[in-house]
Amino acid sequence: MPTVEVILSPALCDTFETKDKTIVVVDIFRATSTIAAALMSGVKSVLPILEAEKTITYKSKGYFIAGERNGKPLPNFDFGNSPRLIQNPKLKGEKLALTTTNGTKCFTWAQGTSCKKIYCGSFINIQATAEQIKKEKNSVVILCAGWKNRVNLEDTLYAGALCNMLKMDFDTEGDSSLVAMDVEEIARNKGYLEYLRNSSHYQRLKNYGAEEDMCFALKENQFAKNIVLVNQHLILED
Amino acid sequence: MPTVEVILSPALCDTFETKDKTIVVVDIFRATSTIAAALMSGVKSVLPILEAEKTITYKSKGYFIAGERNGKPLPNFDFGNSPRLIQNPKLKGEKLALTTTNGTKCFTWAQGTSCKKIYCGSFINIQATAEQIKKEKNSVVILCAGWKNRVNLEDTLYAGALCNMLKMDFDTEGDSSLVAMDVEEIARNKGYLEYLRNSSHYQRLKNYGAEEDMCFALKENQFAKNIVLVNQHLILED
Repeated sequence: MPTVEVILSPALCDTFETKDKTIVVVDIFRATSTIAAALMSGVKSVLPILEAEKTITYKSKGYFIAGERNGKPLPNFDFGNSPRLIQNPKLKGEKLALTTTNGTKCFTWAQGTSCKKIYCGSFINIQATAEQIKKEKNSVVILCAGWKNRVNLEDTLYAGALCNMLKMDFDTEGDSSLVAMDVEEIARNKGYLEYLRNSSHYQRLKNYGAEEDMCFALKENQFAKNIVLVNQHLILED
Repeated sequence: MPTVEVILSPALCDTFETKDKTIVVVDIFRATSTIAAALMSGVKSVLPILEAEKTITYKSKGYFIAGERNGKPLPNFDFGNSPRLIQNPKLKGEKLALTTTNGTKCFTWAQGTSCKKIYCGSFINIQATAEQIKKEKNSVVILCAGWKNRVNLEDTLYAGALCNMLKMDFDTEGDSSLVAMDVEEIARNKGYLEYLRNSSHYQRLKNYGAEEDMCFALKENQFAKNIVLVNQHLILED
């Protein structure tokens, strides 16, 4: 049976084998939810970039540029990292380059491995990602972006939710997946939003006025396409 | 209010500030349970050592030596790393040098920080450790040894249990403590042993015939003294 594993923080990446596996990158608050929202609303592709400076150079290459550092928008960027505000009619059919504190780092890391496929994980299309994974029957590693290499609750929840959706068809490997699945069950019974109100990141983003963004990012299955990385760009998978 | 935080894996150590804090090192299966069992049964002190080769040199310095690598006893050592077998009348009043796969690494790391005190955490004296911490009111970082830098369930459980005992008097900081406390609540309702039967480490140690050791390590409050590191040696705290 194929396996599903969970990496709770990018600092733990090196203890996992990803060769020929599918990596699902997760940064619920906010990179991967913003990417998903952008593609859902008609953006053609999203290019995740590690450095803010490099991202700016894409402006002259016909991209809109978006990003944040430490939860705050970057100066001279077209957009911040809000999954609601990125759904802008101006972006329909356009290419977007995105740099964020934690999320884009994980895409960069994943592209340096010998994994088979890289997906962008978010609650707003979680069912589509689960269905795609079940169809392919390829072993999966869920990589939680966390916050500055620390474990965070919302990415752990997504990992647990995806494991719970896959567990009939995949072997859940390692204690991190058990932890994530149990935490997700508790959170599901309480309601994700209610559960996350105590978390460090929720409090941090709330202080930046991003409460509506978090509500949006936790609403499951707002669209039904999986997101895959092809030639460094994230696109909707056919 | 003083704080309590949880480091779920040694690979995450560098993201935490430990200056002037108390570090509680936890390696339930097995280093810290073995240390606690040794001291409970009359061993005078336990010296945790990173390298097996160095540990051997302590034999000529009047120490008994104990240790394992990858869950298995080391050749030419007096004892393995079993918390039951270490309770040997021969060791009463003696000094013990111990090297293990994951646990002693954490003591080495903790000694390199500017923390105030270093405790050895185990279920078999968890209440005594909690009482000491409450009495001192010093901020605490619980460091889970994990397994080869991966998060494991049993150390997460201990961290959650200690947080739950401290939460009225300490601020639980960071999402890792929330995760640990929730997982511990689930496990407590199920029974720790029953809960851990699915975990990776339980299965691994079971294959080495260590099931009784694990039962022993999960029995809370078998004695009522805290364990502190003084001059590199772990001893019962007065």
